[in-house]
Amino acid sequence: MRKIVLLLFVILFQMSTARSQDASWIWFPGDFEIWLSNKIQVLRIEKGEFYPPFWRLDSHAQLVSFTKDVDLKCPEIIDIYAEGQYNVRVDGVLMYENTGKVTIPAGKHQLKISVYNPVSPPSILIEGETIISNTTWSVSRHDQKNVNADSWVFNTPNNKPSDYRLATKAQESKKTTQQGKTLLMDFGRETFGYLKFHNLKGTGRIKTIYGESKEEALSNDQSETWEILNISQNETADYTAEYSRAFRYIHLSWDGDISFDNVSMLYEYNPLEYKGYFECSDDELNKIWNVSAYTLHLTSREFFLDGIKRDRWLWSGDAYQSYLMNYYLFFDNPLVKRTTWALRGNDPVTTHVNTIMDYSFYWFMGIYDYFLYTGDKEFLQQIYPKMVTLMDFCISRRNMNGMVEGFHDDWVFIDWAPIPKEGEISFEQILFCRSLETMTLCATLLHDKRASEYQDMSDQLRKKILDVFWDDDQKALVHSRLDGVINPLVTKYANMFAVIFDYLTPRQKENVKEHVLLNDKILKITTPYMRFYELEAMCSIKQQKYVLQEIKDYWGGMLRLGASSFWETYDPRESGAEHYAMYDHPFGKSLCHAWGASPIYLLGKYYLGVRPSVAGYEEYVIEPELGGLEWMRGEVPTPSGNISLFVSQNTIKISTVDGNGLLRFRSSLQPICKNAHITTKTNGIYEIALHPNSTYEIIYS
Amino acid sequence: MRKIVLLLFVILFQMSTARSQDASWIWFPGDFEIWLSNKIQVLRIEKGEFYPPFWRLDSHAQLVSFTKDVDLKCPEIIDIYAEGQYNVRVDGVLMYENTGKVTIPAGKHQLKISVYNPVSPPSILIEGETIISNTTWSVSRHDQKNVNADSWVFNTPNNKPSDYRLATKAQESKKTTQQGKTLLMDFGRETFGYLKFHNLKGTGRIKTIYGESKEEALSNDQSETWEILNISQNETADYTAEYSRAFRYIHLSWDGDISFDNVSMLYEYNPLEYKGYFECSDDELNKIWNVSAYTLHLTSREFFLDGIKRDRWLWSGDAYQSYLMNYYLFFDNPLVKRTTWALRGNDPVTTHVNTIMDYSFYWFMGIYDYFLYTGDKEFLQQIYPKMVTLMDFCISRRNMNGMVEGFHDDWVFIDWAPIPKEGEISFEQILFCRSLETMTLCATLLHDKRASEYQDMSDQLRKKILDVFWDDDQKALVHSRLDGVINPLVTKYANMFAVIFDYLTPRQKENVKEHVLLNDKILKITTPYMRFYELEAMCSIKQQKYVLQEIKDYWGGMLRLGASSFWETYDPRESGAEHYAMYDHPFGKSLCHAWGASPIYLLGKYYLGVRPSVAGYEEYVIEPELGGLEWMRGEVPTPSGNISLFVSQNTIKISTVDGNGLLRFRSSLQPICKNAHITTKTNGIYEIALHPNSTYEIIYS
Repeated sequence: MRKIVLLLFVILFQMSTARSQDASWIWFPGDFEIWLSNKIQVLRIEKGEFYPPFWRLDSHAQLVSFTKDVDLKCPEIIDIYAEGQYNVRVDGVLMYENTGKVTIPAGKHQLKISVYNPVSPPSILIEGETIISNTTWSVSRHDQKNVNADSWVFNTPNNKPSDYRLATKAQESKKTTQQGKTLLMDFGRETFGYLKFHNLKGTGRIKTIYGESKEEALSNDQSETWEILNISQNETADYTAEYSRAFRYIHLSWDGDISFDNVSMLYEYNPLEYKGYFECSDDELNKIWNVSAYTLHLTSREFFLDGIKRDRWLWSGDAYQSYLMNYYLFFDNPLVKRTTWALRGNDPVTTHVNTIMDYSFYWFMGIYDYFLYTGDKEFLQQIYPKMVTLMDFCISRRNMNGMVEGFHDDWVFIDWAPIPKEGEISFEQILFCRSLETMTLCATLLHDKRASEYQDMSDQLRKKILDVFWDDDQKALVHSRLDGVINPLVTKYANMFAVIFDYLTPRQKENVKEHVLLNDKILKITTPYMRFYELEAMCSIKQQKYVLQEIKDYWGGMLRLGASSFWETYDPRESGAEHYAMYDHPFGKSLCHAWGASPIYLLGKYYLGVRPSVAGYEEYVIEPELGGLEWMRGEVPTPSGNISLFVSQNTIKISTVDGNGLLRFRSSLQPICKNAHITTKTNGIYEIALHPNSTYEIIYS
Repeated sequence: MRKIVLLLFVILFQMSTARSQDASWIWFPGDFEIWLSNKIQVLRIEKGEFYPPFWRLDSHAQLVSFTKDVDLKCPEIIDIYAEGQYNVRVDGVLMYENTGKVTIPAGKHQLKISVYNPVSPPSILIEGETIISNTTWSVSRHDQKNVNADSWVFNTPNNKPSDYRLATKAQESKKTTQQGKTLLMDFGRETFGYLKFHNLKGTGRIKTIYGESKEEALSNDQSETWEILNISQNETADYTAEYSRAFRYIHLSWDGDISFDNVSMLYEYNPLEYKGYFECSDDELNKIWNVSAYTLHLTSREFFLDGIKRDRWLWSGDAYQSYLMNYYLFFDNPLVKRTTWALRGNDPVTTHVNTIMDYSFYWFMGIYDYFLYTGDKEFLQQIYPKMVTLMDFCISRRNMNGMVEGFHDDWVFIDWAPIPKEGEISFEQILFCRSLETMTLCATLLHDKRASEYQDMSDQLRKKILDVFWDDDQKALVHSRLDGVINPLVTKYANMFAVIFDYLTPRQKENVKEHVLLNDKILKITTPYMRFYELEAMCSIKQQKYVLQEIKDYWGGMLRLGASSFWETYDPRESGAEHYAMYDHPFGKSLCHAWGASPIYLLGKYYLGVRPSVAGYEEYVIEPELGGLEWMRGEVPTPSGNISLFVSQNTIKISTVDGNGLLRFRSSLQPICKNAHITTKTNGIYEIALHPNSTYEIIYS
């Protein structure tokens, strides 16, 4: 008898587990992200003062209705949980005296649940035997359009979307120096979290100065981030600061009769899995990869942020680079999707993303790459209506020549560099063209008749870019045209993107390499942001040896200055605390900036050499390039697991996952592989077709 | 010395009074109204169950920036109050350590205050010596457009927009009957408020059933509005229900050990001034006017609501009639503006207003009338961008013939009546045409170049309406055309609006009067909603005698059934509790419905005969019509005060305000007026030009 009861208990437990595992909290697509990004973006303070974004912050839908058609063999009781005030209709009939438990009769019925919530996204969780809330439910914000609901990791009644928080864990200061009523703490490296006082008591004010550098923490009001904690505790108790902040050092000073045992912090982080990996024969490069990974992790939070100290804002151009790095480290799709939804906000489109023209284009390009790396067509379907309206806006801002120009208050950013930003900038046209190609791709996949319009526009623009901006004398794309007059200035921006996107003929590519990319007379790039593309362009024309040295010089330079995460800008010619200044503030620079982590991407894509060639790694290419290294090993995540590689000067070992791969490599002698057919190409190039879930060992030289 | 101190005190007091009277809380136009209307519209319950609108609820802007350019002779300290988190920039520079008191240096400066508030509209109040917040400030929701901020009655730090509440005052039940643990209260007439228990104690549930009729209050769960109050009070204390409700009767029943001394209510109302007035020789008509005024007052709340019992939603078609009545009773501009903002919501337009096609058109028409009666061009300027985008939506939904048809899920309402609603409905085209005329008017006034486009569209449509729908055989506009085929059915709807808007030739008007309006074979109108226009059309062709009898029959009929406010529908053929049924619910009908109050409008506009002919009563016409009454007297509010009238069969007394009036009346003999020149027209019509702020007495016969 006891056994039967136990068995029954186990079955019931499994049933209830199965139910709760299947059902998810659902909401209108984009609402969670818009709501959460508002919460995060208003956390910015500058010297204690509130500092919200200068772009529009949208709102989640206040009122939505979820619907689901069901066909039940027998009546079923469903449990309804909602974030917001709600009601339930079955076949259009309002259920009175609803207690959250509703019986749905057998047969075909339509369930409709309307939820109002002005504070956080209206969401529901439905748990029944067969009826459960998930992304097959329809949802409408009452504008006569139904779309599929969205969900994420929230699967139980108590795990509500509005309760979402990052993880925390306790961390201690590595070194603490007390002097009277002041304390200087060094946490050993760049970090992020909530300051925590142990056994605090007394009344008074604690001034908390955060520093990414020791100089900043000791600079008093010159620090970018400080705040006053007003303490009034009669009884001894732990006290945790309300807001998490970025720092390595913290300087505390207090008054009154405040006392405490010690101070630690709660490290706040997104518990992401490090799926990608890189290791090689060069220890400095290994350190660069590790610090890049840590930099990217610190900035990969609720969303991909640019830097952790200052903004906590979402920037499309910065996020675009984080996406690319993400595919070689975390391969975390939800984080890319969340950031994409949040950056876009709601209709109507009244400004460019972040008010920056280029940043609208990066938004499209991010979706192009997301689809290429993940093959997630469902997301394309969800986001496509918002792509169309943003593209409508971009198209409406073309000039008479069909080119985009800064309009009204549009910010034409390109880079922090002294370059012209007026008129028709070749760089902007290239990004716009790539955005139109993204629209063509998505419209085609989703069978939208606009595909051919987008195709025509991108074809025409691509032709026009070369017709107008290619300068045969300078053998390069020139920078811009203003009021019909070409500015003969050549900069790297358009040229490197034209190389990356393969918009040039082979001869033009060679020209650009020689006359622009390797030409010392062209304006140097000083931000890791644009160095990302500069080095990518060089890699894409097989200059891995050159790029490796650049990485070691530039990123290695920061490490030699003690960087524990990579910076927003780095100019080797500066010294000491000069490195920390930016935006006219002595400590204005962010010392942990996502765009500083690009070696992750470059080493994964152009040294390990792994990249998808058909969406979602259905097909992919591996072109390893040691670039002067003795050996390297690594892991590159794909939707079906990691591709593993070991490459030395005479051996390539590969372990594949799903999808069909193509290994391409150079060898001076005929290579050997016992379980693969080797195809010989011209110029010492060999190719091997890689089968799913297989391992290969190639001997070459 | 004491005198000087006192004098100083008086001066300082006056200064501070002056300052606080001038400064207003300001916000982004429309935000307050959108936020408030959401709060009100989700108060609907049906039989205890939450019942939100089925249309989209928008949100106020989460983040706005207010800017003001100032030029100071000497430095000035300003006090800043904000609803939301905020910061201050002076000439672009962020003010650190802001305590709400900021010193602005002498000279020219730009103030910018950014406010974030996800819960209620971001608002500020600025009090300085010369710098005060008002509608001359610019505000942006960060979409690269600056508009003038809006304000209302909130003028002190403690009188915040988000604290806005209607007024309340205590009222007692007229008759209370207790039986065991039940109580039936009759408050003597239709009313609205919060139930209040005096000296309540104990634990248990009180079921509160509200009834507009005694039958409803005693019908238990058949009542439209009931709720359970969960009581748990150890100590004796007054208890007020959380939500205000509509009722005349309340039936209470309770369990547990609940006890209380007595029950009263807090009447909740908008403290509007009754500016308009009407009194005449017919006591029944006087009662009709008074009950109409009370009906309109009950439904004129935070917004013009349709009825007070059921929806508490904003309906554009209903509100349109309330606006018109308002001009003859309260002349409360803010209430019209609030309702107009709230009905419109935010861009993008994805459905018609209330999802109803006709209701989009009434929204435009309401603005036409608002401008005609008030001359408030500032509001036109504010609302015009939202007019353009709603009109863009309407224009985008025209068919190949340039006519509007119900599209997708559009609701084509017209009236609660068994009439075709498919295809091209003549009624809808007329309302669309009038909406285009409104756009023409506003675009012209605001010097928008779209004026001529709107003009062309309305001209063409007006011609098309007569070409397509006028039936020379039936001497009327027919109802509709479907797939190119005319439906020869004649209904009153299009015909009466064509008369009111003067779209017909004099001969056609006569035809319509005879063959439609006075034709018993045409489908009868049974809602006060469309009776409004039917009777207006009759009045506009001088059928005041007929209309008077109709008013007495129809509205008098409700009074004879004991109505204390006018109903949503009334069919004299029904009896007893049949009158209370609607929408398949035994007590579904609203017994206090704004559209039931139309006698206010008809008596003011077509009997007292006062109407503006140039915007804001700059010029106006008075055409009194006794319609069979012996005498009448009244007051008609205008922007500059009341026009007073007394009219008997041989005397007209008028007291005018600003603006130039024209009195037009009929007399069988030459009239006499000692202080005016009388112009003789044909057919016994006489006219007198009325000067501003003058009184006239005319003897006629």
